[in-house]
Amino acid sequence: MSEIILSINAGSSSLKVSVYKSTSPNPIQLAEAQIDGLTAPPAKLKYNRGDVRIKGEDVTDVHDQGSAFKDLLDRFLNDDGLPEVKDKESIKFASHRVVHGGDFSEAQIINKDTYGKLEELSDLAPLHNAAALSLVRAIHDHLPHATNIAFFDSAFHATIPKQITAQAIDPKIANRNKLRKYGFHGLSYGFIVSAISEYLDKPLSSLNIIALHLGSGASVCAVKNGLSYDTSMGLTPLAGLPGATRSGSVDPSLIFHYTHHAGRLSHNAAKGMRLTEAEEILNKESGWKALTGTTDFGQISTKAAQGDEMCKLAFDIFVDRILNFVAGYYVKLGGKVDAMVFAGGIGEKGAELRDAVIAHFECLGFGLDGEKNVHAAEKEDVVVDISDKEARHKVLVCRTDEQLQMARGVVRDGPRFGKQQ
Amino acid sequence: MSEIILSINAGSSSLKVSVYKSTSPNPIQLAEAQIDGLTAPPAKLKYNRGDVRIKGEDVTDVHDQGSAFKDLLDRFLNDDGLPEVKDKESIKFASHRVVHGGDFSEAQIINKDTYGKLEELSDLAPLHNAAALSLVRAIHDHLPHATNIAFFDSAFHATIPKQITAQAIDPKIANRNKLRKYGFHGLSYGFIVSAISEYLDKPLSSLNIIALHLGSGASVCAVKNGLSYDTSMGLTPLAGLPGATRSGSVDPSLIFHYTHHAGRLSHNAAKGMRLTEAEEILNKESGWKALTGTTDFGQISTKAAQGDEMCKLAFDIFVDRILNFVAGYYVKLGGKVDAMVFAGGIGEKGAELRDAVIAHFECLGFGLDGEKNVHAAEKEDVVVDISDKEARHKVLVCRTDEQLQMARGVVRDGPRFGKQQ
Repeated sequence: MSEIILSINAGSSSLKVSVYKSTSPNPIQLAEAQIDGLTAPPAKLKYNRGDVRIKGEDVTDVHDQGSAFKDLLDRFLNDDGLPEVKDKESIKFASHRVVHGGDFSEAQIINKDTYGKLEELSDLAPLHNAAALSLVRAIHDHLPHATNIAFFDSAFHATIPKQITAQAIDPKIANRNKLRKYGFHGLSYGFIVSAISEYLDKPLSSLNIIALHLGSGASVCAVKNGLSYDTSMGLTPLAGLPGATRSGSVDPSLIFHYTHHAGRLSHNAAKGMRLTEAEEILNKESGWKALTGTTDFGQISTKAAQGDEMCKLAFDIFVDRILNFVAGYYVKLGGKVDAMVFAGGIGEKGAELRDAVIAHFECLGFGLDGEKNVHAAEKEDVVVDISDKEARHKVLVCRTDEQLQMARGVVRDGPRFGKQQ
Repeated sequence: MSEIILSINAGSSSLKVSVYKSTSPNPIQLAEAQIDGLTAPPAKLKYNRGDVRIKGEDVTDVHDQGSAFKDLLDRFLNDDGLPEVKDKESIKFASHRVVHGGDFSEAQIINKDTYGKLEELSDLAPLHNAAALSLVRAIHDHLPHATNIAFFDSAFHATIPKQITAQAIDPKIANRNKLRKYGFHGLSYGFIVSAISEYLDKPLSSLNIIALHLGSGASVCAVKNGLSYDTSMGLTPLAGLPGATRSGSVDPSLIFHYTHHAGRLSHNAAKGMRLTEAEEILNKESGWKALTGTTDFGQISTKAAQGDEMCKLAFDIFVDRILNFVAGYYVKLGGKVDAMVFAGGIGEKGAELRDAVIAHFECLGFGLDGEKNVHAAEKEDVVVDISDKEARHKVLVCRTDEQLQMARGVVRDGPRFGKQQ
């Protein structure tokens, strides 16, 4: 018997919920809904179910993750075109994207014990885990019969070897405070390796790719024999590439020359949350927004081409930082690379960025088909090949889907989560 | 008429002074002396002049840079084997290695004006510039007739393009506080490019190399057409590779999870120096010392080979981080690389490290001659070729000499510094 799975993705000011029927191996999406602008009212709704498409509708009485979830749940329950979700009891699983999973290497049912561990982890990632945790509490109230499952963005990277995760710092403090590279975007990378393995008809166990998840947060991952071997994010999502409002890696002493209050606790920190001004500045007040005034990289790319100086600088910085990681991963894979894969909003839509990046990798045998590159975003396919046909290595674009990846996880690991066969 | 040049290198607890006769284009070294252990008495002397070699002799009445300089100066003046330095007036130039030169792109005579600018820069590099500055004051007292010249470790990197030096942070604060990548080890890289250009008989203007200066501080530099194009250190020498007591790049938020006092001013900061506990921890209490208990990378390499777990980890971390930078620079040079060049104490002596690094770069056409690699350190030559003869790219070892590089700078730019023709 198929059951209903909700895939829930709580951002700092948005909530996305997708509804799946738990068919095996691929759950079927029935509807997806999103509320944006939770911290800048009025909140706005997006709702897609079959031919029904709502976009940009104001939502009233919604002010936080909990009330946003209540709103979306009511819409699903009252949507006549969604008979599968006839009552709350039909929803068996609520799967939650949790950014920082610490040492968890796989998804966890959220019970009293694991919830406590997730709260502890929030100390490492106060900016990133808080929304998901507040939602878990809300859902426990609204859907007491559902099984809540945490899917961690860090779990995919549990296979990175120790010489890469370990830092050259006091090992006693590193162990006590759990300071190491974790890596994130793991739901996306999990989706990508499956999709590319299928597309290339190559078993996961021998698949080597360099995957780039480029969105408002951006990272690169080296996948060796289907497993994460290195990734650009670190202890938190701050390290590595710059993003919409994130600096990416900077000299660790930079923030102390940026402000004399780096170590002070931020006024914006929620109750009980330990968040410094430094972390706030580097995560929220930097990146493309600080350089250009916008977080929209598409707009930045267009203006860069038109000669806008700061947009050009932002574009060129992104290309430069991407090079550093991709080149390193090429060598770590011993040059045996099945494909370089672009994903995420910018990865999928940013033809100019892909063009600029790949131009640098011609010396390693990568090349683009200019026409295919420009038209990649118009395709409906999950994977699109944009390689030059003479090139030694492939370049692919992958429409990654973190929501579906969670639903698949529920179906695949169903028995462990108490799913009926 | 030839004149006497002193090349002075003040470390945090050591002082090295070399004496040159200003012959053109290559000054001749007459003597070199070093006092170590200024902060851990008794200080120890090394003194080389012709056949005279003193090593490890206790030095009394020496407790800081100024008194150490006085001690060495007296030795030079009273050494009968050094008739060229018969009185203080014969010393025309005192060249000082200054780590952080901010926007200075060439050496500067130290006068009231430039001294003021150097003091301002010390705010960016309190740990690194302080020793040199205190020495400049001492030498002005001891050698009032000499011209003091500051040579900057950052100056070689003035050619790095903006998309590499700029950071994805608020540009107004970046400009005001001078926050960008600077890069260091520039005296060494300046020496290396000249030596390799001569060795390969290739003009500097078309020389492309990847140079690794690996010592207790370690960095990598991409040299394109003879000029620095990128380097691994950043705003300060902290960013990039780990070192003897330095973490290298870590997630910029890591330090706030290491200690709750990251932003506090350090008790060790000298008067008027703004130095945080964070900077102290990451520069002085991390690196090989924190992982293994020793700063001696030769010992770490030996123990790693014998199976010591933490030494193996430190060795593997170093190789891993080196890969990241070298691979990135290979791509930034478009694969047109004349040589990968190892220099600095570990670069020159670390046959195991070179072997481990180059093994990863076989996929890009590098290869070692095992015998030549093992025996490289025994050679007297400035440049030693250790490449496999079938390999597409060369691997070289270069005996870099920052002291000589400063003396050459005085001779070359003599007229600008008031040197007699």
